[in-house]
Amino acid sequence: MLIGKMAPVSLKARFQESVTPAALRAYLAEFISTFFYVFAVVGSIMSSRKLKPDTALDPSGLIIVAVANALSLSSAVYIASNVSGGHVNPAVTFGMAVGGHISVPTALFYWISQMLGSVFACLLLKVTIVGQHIPTYGIAEEMTGFGASIVEGVATFGLVYTVYAAGRERRRGGGPGGIGAMAIGGMGAANVLAAAAFSGGCINPACAFGSAVIAGRFKNQAVYWVGPLLGATVAGLLYDNLVSPAQPPDSTSASIVP
Amino acid sequence: MLIGKMAPVSLKARFQESVTPAALRAYLAEFISTFFYVFAVVGSIMSSRKLKPDTALDPSGLIIVAVANALSLSSAVYIASNVSGGHVNPAVTFGMAVGGHISVPTALFYWISQMLGSVFACLLLKVTIVGQHIPTYGIAEEMTGFGASIVEGVATFGLVYTVYAAGRERRRGGGPGGIGAMAIGGMGAANVLAAAAFSGGCINPACAFGSAVIAGRFKNQAVYWVGPLLGATVAGLLYDNLVSPAQPPDSTSASIVP
Amino acid sequence: MLIGKMAPVSLKARFQESVTPAALRAYLAEFISTFFYVFAVVGSIMSSRKLKPDTALDPSGLIIVAVANALSLSSAVYIASNVSGGHVNPAVTFGMAVGGHISVPTALFYWISQMLGSVFACLLLKVTIVGQHIPTYGIAEEMTGFGASIVEGVATFGLVYTVYAAGRERRRGGGPGGIGAMAIGGMGAANVLAAAAFSGGCINPACAFGSAVIAGRFKNQAVYWVGPLLGATVAGLLYDNLVSPAQPPDSTSASIVP
Amino acid sequence: MLIGKMAPVSLKARFQESVTPAALRAYLAEFISTFFYVFAVVGSIMSSRKLKPDTALDPSGLIIVAVANALSLSSAVYIASNVSGGHVNPAVTFGMAVGGHISVPTALFYWISQMLGSVFACLLLKVTIVGQHIPTYGIAEEMTGFGASIVEGVATFGLVYTVYAAGRERRRGGGPGGIGAMAIGGMGAANVLAAAAFSGGCINPACAFGSAVIAGRFKNQAVYWVGPLLGATVAGLLYDNLVSPAQPPDSTSASIVP
Repeated sequence: MLIGKMAPVSLKARFQESVTPAALRAYLAEFISTFFYVFAVVGSIMSSRKLKPDTALDPSGLIIVAVANALSLSSAVYIASNVSGGHVNPAVTFGMAVGGHISVPTALFYWISQMLGSVFACLLLKVTIVGQHIPTYGIAEEMTGFGASIVEGVATFGLVYTVYAAGRERRRGGGPGGIGAMAIGGMGAANVLAAAAFSGGCINPACAFGSAVIAGRFKNQAVYWVGPLLGATVAGLLYDNLVSPAQPPDSTSASIVP
Repeated sequence: MLIGKMAPVSLKARFQESVTPAALRAYLAEFISTFFYVFAVVGSIMSSRKLKPDTALDPSGLIIVAVANALSLSSAVYIASNVSGGHVNPAVTFGMAVGGHISVPTALFYWISQMLGSVFACLLLKVTIVGQHIPTYGIAEEMTGFGASIVEGVATFGLVYTVYAAGRERRRGGGPGGIGAMAIGGMGAANVLAAAAFSGGCINPACAFGSAVIAGRFKNQAVYWVGPLLGATVAGLLYDNLVSPAQPPDSTSASIVP
Repeated sequence: MLIGKMAPVSLKARFQESVTPAALRAYLAEFISTFFYVFAVVGSIMSSRKLKPDTALDPSGLIIVAVANALSLSSAVYIASNVSGGHVNPAVTFGMAVGGHISVPTALFYWISQMLGSVFACLLLKVTIVGQHIPTYGIAEEMTGFGASIVEGVATFGLVYTVYAAGRERRRGGGPGGIGAMAIGGMGAANVLAAAAFSGGCINPACAFGSAVIAGRFKNQAVYWVGPLLGATVAGLLYDNLVSPAQPPDSTSASIVP
Repeated sequence: MLIGKMAPVSLKARFQESVTPAALRAYLAEFISTFFYVFAVVGSIMSSRKLKPDTALDPSGLIIVAVANALSLSSAVYIASNVSGGHVNPAVTFGMAVGGHISVPTALFYWISQMLGSVFACLLLKVTIVGQHIPTYGIAEEMTGFGASIVEGVATFGLVYTVYAAGRERRRGGGPGGIGAMAIGGMGAANVLAAAAFSGGCINPACAFGSAVIAGRFKNQAVYWVGPLLGATVAGLLYDNLVSPAQPPDSTSASIVP
């Protein structure tokens, strides 16, 4: 749950609190939000490919996918914010679990919901849109898998860091149900603009997974999981422990920002 | 009205409360907001056609229509939010009626206002802009009408779901008069990016209706009504009954999101 | 002033309250905000022309000017919101004066400030940027001046209507110092997308005036003044008297939107 | 610190209050926010160059860099807002120091953090992205260095002015942790749209410095430091002393904007 660091609890109790009605609603919210995020992002890539069949990613395609990320991620976070916290991304859930803001069993159910949402979105696009394959993420020829993982990891670090900052702003009304949703979508899309031409610009393992499942091509999956999960871990540890410790949250920060 | 589930009332009483001054103001607000939404969206399509006369929809045209959707839908929802709730779309009104947030007679007047607003916007564009026809929405050759209906329905599902989430956020200041307007416009535009190249990306039956009336071409109208109304129905039932039941709204959700 | 309908006051008293320190600060704020709005919009047009010297307005140029409008108008309104109300546009000031939200002498000083800001912005662009003329707004060949005036007037109607709605939202924190600034910029930019290819898409008489003064070409000025001022008048009268009467503002609207 | 004008304090005391835990957290926040701003902006320029290798900046590249600025600057300001105030730019820090909102020693540490963040971002891009040089900012052939400095200075003036306005809005919830972050990013990106084709459109000395260090080309550095720092100085003095004096902040402004 998102109720701050938790005292150690038995796994059984953890599991039980992961199947409460509120928790089940959260999983449904994550499923729906991730579905719409992937529907918009993968659908936009397919749209730009249909409109310019002969080219690989070009500047106009980059703008299209970045705008789709900004708009759909902001909205997907917003619509789930007061039900599940609006993760919409396994890396975000991982980063929240690292910080102890969500229990491991609940995080696993979040992951399942997010990946199912992504698979369903790609499946729907495949069955309704005739004569196009589901695109999968790939890295530029000159990039090494290691370099691409770093780029994806840094981009995801920024995204998870923003989610943490938004959580801290929640009580002020600027959280994921407020301007925070715009900041999360903006950070994600800005990093997609920077990374898309080199490492693919996925920043969401569920999106990479869903498109790979439906397309049947799992090449480079590691790039879209290892880097992002490491980036999410660093972001979670850094924000809570160094940048903005929860204990006393505002007495300290107030001293520098009135 | 938007005051939650209502006890059964006689149709006469329902009709009477649909002609109060407040209700008439709401219809006017829906007329004006839909007018500006359609003016911007259809006008933008005409602009991009004039600037590139020889091509069908191309990537730059897709960006133009998506940006027009994001900006104009957000603004149209915002300016009507505290008068009519900011539906600006018959599918949204239908979805709100399904959830019992607006009475059927009031919903009918909303529909009439929205469709009149759309027709007037297209009429104004036709009479002022010489030498161009009013564009109508169409589906890609390879798409089936059924597939296109599904795509439009899913896109509208996302839009109505976002409107429901915004309604739930209203009391926190993040509703259609706040950040919710941005999320609604963002979800609509993101889905237009994904759908435009395949099913037309209308997601607003009033917009399809108005342009068809003025252009005199009613082909594919069913695609832009059946799918969206079904999607709106599912969104309304799903959100209120499963994702975020109104009874006790926050005692439960608070347990997962502090 | 923006303190609602005013009891009749002698012109002398009106003038005196137009030269208070607070009023002078408001004129300075309008000057600066209009300066930056025009700097960004006219500068963006010059940028896109430099990057594609051989073409007239093309789709990418349309996107550039629309994005410049959305970003700079939102920001210009925001930075002036709590000092002058954030008009940044003579048509908006005119519409506020029609509604009695600003006195006529104050409105005249607002106009002067806005037009000076626009002239200075264009002058700065002219002296710093070598080898380019200041672009002026023009209408498409096939358009009549009358048709273009209507398009500009409708576009400005939407802008002023949004400003009125934002004023009504102010007490809820969603006014020009909040999300209202985004809605105002969004409505303006959406209408620019629709109008730019046909009537020029100026929607701001000060912008048309400033560029004309520095370029020395006053062709079509009437188009950018007559239509917008009429549109602003209709918007002001419509919003306050029909859509959302100030007397009792929320007791009525609350009955339809909880 | 950001706690308004300060009584004269000994330099030693100033330095001591610059190494408190809260201050160190602020430096870390500035480092991270500047890192992500530069990562997105410079990375986006590299992306658009890779996708269109044969061209210099073209309209699509201009849109990409402007969108990257809008999204990443808004997000970078937001995530640092309640820790460091969200400067993310040495010119902003300079402008805040001029207005006495941050002490000189603290400002120096902010500068160091911002420049290190920028250098690290460019270094990361260089080591991970093979076969591309780090782009540096340059001015158009026909521009004089003096003219370019003025354009960059005016653009930065607008940015710092917006930061000041956001600081004034903070208590109303519309500051850098709220809609102010969007206005700051919007003003910056709008000015980039206007300036990029002529003076480079950097508006952030740290960004110019970091890319120059990694690329090893310091040509035109003066343009990106002199103009912006002067613009920031004027903005700081103008806002606090003329536009919106802090002493009595709202009694005056309230008289013109209820």
